[in-house]
Amino acid sequence: MSKQKPQCRGMMNRVSKVFQPALIIPKNATIKHREATSKSQRLMLEQGLMRQAGNGTLHVLPVLQRAVQKAIDLIDRHMQSVDAQRITLPVLTPAELWRQSGRLNESDPPTELLQTKDRHGKMQILGPTHEESITALMAAIAPVSYRQFPLRLYQISTKFRDEMKPRFGLMRAKEFLMKDLYTFDVDPHRCRQTYETVNAAYGRLFSEIGVPFVKVAGDSGTMGGSLSHEYHFPSEVGEDELLQCDQCGVRTNSEHLQKICALCDRCGAGKESTASTSSFERQRGIEVGHAFILEDRYTKPLGASCLQPNGKPTPLQMGCYGIGVTRLIAASLEVLSSEKELRWPLALAPYRVCIVTPKAGSKEESLVSPWVDRLYNLLHTAVPGCQGDVIVDDRNQLTIGKRVLDARRMGYPLIVVIGAKAANPAGSERFELHNLHAGTEQDLSYTDLAAAIGDVLSTTHHRPAVSDVQKVQLEN
Amino acid sequence: MSKQKPQCRGMMNRVSKVFQPALIIPKNATIKHREATSKSQRLMLEQGLMRQAGNGTLHVLPVLQRAVQKAIDLIDRHMQSVDAQRITLPVLTPAELWRQSGRLNESDPPTELLQTKDRHGKMQILGPTHEESITALMAAIAPVSYRQFPLRLYQISTKFRDEMKPRFGLMRAKEFLMKDLYTFDVDPHRCRQTYETVNAAYGRLFSEIGVPFVKVAGDSGTMGGSLSHEYHFPSEVGEDELLQCDQCGVRTNSEHLQKICALCDRCGAGKESTASTSSFERQRGIEVGHAFILEDRYTKPLGASCLQPNGKPTPLQMGCYGIGVTRLIAASLEVLSSEKELRWPLALAPYRVCIVTPKAGSKEESLVSPWVDRLYNLLHTAVPGCQGDVIVDDRNQLTIGKRVLDARRMGYPLIVVIGAKAANPAGSERFELHNLHAGTEQDLSYTDLAAAIGDVLSTTHHRPAVSDVQKVQLEN
Repeated sequence: MSKQKPQCRGMMNRVSKVFQPALIIPKNATIKHREATSKSQRLMLEQGLMRQAGNGTLHVLPVLQRAVQKAIDLIDRHMQSVDAQRITLPVLTPAELWRQSGRLNESDPPTELLQTKDRHGKMQILGPTHEESITALMAAIAPVSYRQFPLRLYQISTKFRDEMKPRFGLMRAKEFLMKDLYTFDVDPHRCRQTYETVNAAYGRLFSEIGVPFVKVAGDSGTMGGSLSHEYHFPSEVGEDELLQCDQCGVRTNSEHLQKICALCDRCGAGKESTASTSSFERQRGIEVGHAFILEDRYTKPLGASCLQPNGKPTPLQMGCYGIGVTRLIAASLEVLSSEKELRWPLALAPYRVCIVTPKAGSKEESLVSPWVDRLYNLLHTAVPGCQGDVIVDDRNQLTIGKRVLDARRMGYPLIVVIGAKAANPAGSERFELHNLHAGTEQDLSYTDLAAAIGDVLSTTHHRPAVSDVQKVQLEN
Repeated sequence: MSKQKPQCRGMMNRVSKVFQPALIIPKNATIKHREATSKSQRLMLEQGLMRQAGNGTLHVLPVLQRAVQKAIDLIDRHMQSVDAQRITLPVLTPAELWRQSGRLNESDPPTELLQTKDRHGKMQILGPTHEESITALMAAIAPVSYRQFPLRLYQISTKFRDEMKPRFGLMRAKEFLMKDLYTFDVDPHRCRQTYETVNAAYGRLFSEIGVPFVKVAGDSGTMGGSLSHEYHFPSEVGEDELLQCDQCGVRTNSEHLQKICALCDRCGAGKESTASTSSFERQRGIEVGHAFILEDRYTKPLGASCLQPNGKPTPLQMGCYGIGVTRLIAASLEVLSSEKELRWPLALAPYRVCIVTPKAGSKEESLVSPWVDRLYNLLHTAVPGCQGDVIVDDRNQLTIGKRVLDARRMGYPLIVVIGAKAANPAGSERFELHNLHAGTEQDLSYTDLAAAIGDVLSTTHHRPAVSDVQKVQLEN
């Protein structure tokens, strides 16, 4: 899809203009505050990337919004690589559809569902996920010829879950951005092929982000299907415990251990043990993605069928595939950041390069200032991966040192300082380049600087994913 | 902001792959159906651009989703031209904030508000608009130094209104995509400057879309401020009646006539007349945008203040500026389309060029087929305004004539037919170019074809806006 750059060429991004209200946490509140929050949440609040709105809801502020847009674009690209088409389903789903699918039992409604009653007294569910909605759409056009499949439809939209304990900011919020893909196939075999295709795309997507990830067997029971995998970023604050069985090598969420290992003939570990036995490697994980084969769990009760080559209608075979978009960002920051400094995956960084200008009143100021515009324009127009992604820290009432510290805390992947050495005699000017991903600092000539930035942004920027993750087969 | 094209280069958009389920309306239902629906709604349903989901809610399908993304990109660009920064406020707004602002009176709640109660019994409003939410955010960081202003924050997100009579599809839906910009200034004078700046951007934005529009004085009373203007697309199905006073020339919505003309000293029309007098030019309009100066209507009760140069805090001066994104698309189609054929503003067209391939089994098929890839790649990679925006109607079991009719009904602005004349001797091949905006059909050589397409897409494509709209001053 053609996207015109929302960034007008020549309009300079300036730190002084960005709405990024720092949250100053009183010294004496810090310890308690730290206990109640995750590292990423605290840093994002302190750096003015977001603000608490209500219990479990957050305001996403401009810098974070840029990261959200990058995540959306990244996901769009990977979804389109498997011929998925983007749509938007309404937030409001008639409760009646949930009754038909059997997921809503009026006498004992799921506690995490938010509902609203319209002026005609009809109950509407604020969609936490949209299996009913998309299946009703398919049912409305059923039966469709087998020739029209596979069909892959996804949306990226706000979802709702009335969490008992919202926490860790965007990690577990009541309202969050989610990508949900729904696939429809004519038979279980093709549905399984789609499952492998989409899981391969997930592997590429998470590899591009570059945060180490683990794919584990999931429990398809929660959604009513037959096969499921989860994608996790290993992290201490993860709410899931991930296990790898020493005997059969299967990886799973401890919640599903017995079920999963019992399905795996060559291993008896699941039957005889609980999560407390020693035959498992353990780590905690933050779930960022999930894949399910749903079979005809929804298509059958809601009547979404296809016409087979023999002319007979059969229920469509369905899959669903989620990625928590806002959670993905928070989880990436949680894994990559230190206690004091944010670190972004290059693919999600709100800006990729920060230029620190000379201090106002310094003796070199007038001499070196022209380099700011020159470098900004060069990067913006001629260096791949930079367009629209350069910001200038023009708060020149602050020292360079203070602003470099701020830039490191924000985690701009590349920081360029235009300081005293930029006033060297013509031809021997030098610029400081901090590469936060490589952990290096270099003094470079103008030409070398642009080349070095281009190199960093064009070469692979992946952190290694957990080594054997690609080898994990769909075992069960 | 850097956006990577979600469209992978080389991946061809094909009509046969697009999920676009036509709604076949039975012949005998047509008359009744036509009465109950607007033209744009009927065409969008028939063409498989959207589907009814519930009462007042719609599924946005892939082709329409592309138009939505284009509208978002367009709005992003114009918002950034006035230094507005994009954010996301939660859908769920604590009802408590609406009580504080005085917009929610529990004993007589506004009937259009959808509400939900969370598991702790707290009432949350599904935001129809977010004055309270953004003002609470500003209050949380108050008082902010006057140096930080002007501040302009906008979001593009789903809004909710429990319409009494949802109708005309996206034109009046219970759930819709809206751009809402909120501005904050330190005093009324600067707030008024912001108002003029944003209204100028609205003028440019609507001019770029090219659908004739009218700007009329609005009634700021509904939002509690002091100055307001509405932007309308004149259309028979518009729910508003727009008047232009023959005496003072002021344009307004008939709802606000007496109030507006009474404010305008040089004219007595408003006082002595109602909408039935003959001293007004009348037309119906679809409201697509709205601008309000809100003064301290929200900032005062919610405590959002700035520190003036003298060190004293004063309430911020606020403005709000909406554009109905999905309604904008529907209204554009309503105005531009015929009863049988959709017409898109070039800026919002889901695809800009449709290539119709030779019919399968035709004698020229094998000879001319290579032109399809060649033209597609040329347009996609080398013709400005085409990248990602070309689709190939590859349903070659259908005749060329049938597919050209379909393409005209869909309203692809440019249609290229690769037919028998593309099999002429080398150097004299000819291609048919239909330009739906100009209403022309030409037989062109390959070189001339690419040049002609480039010309259409690069030259101004604006339909003239209503001639004197730019002259309407902020009169009251």
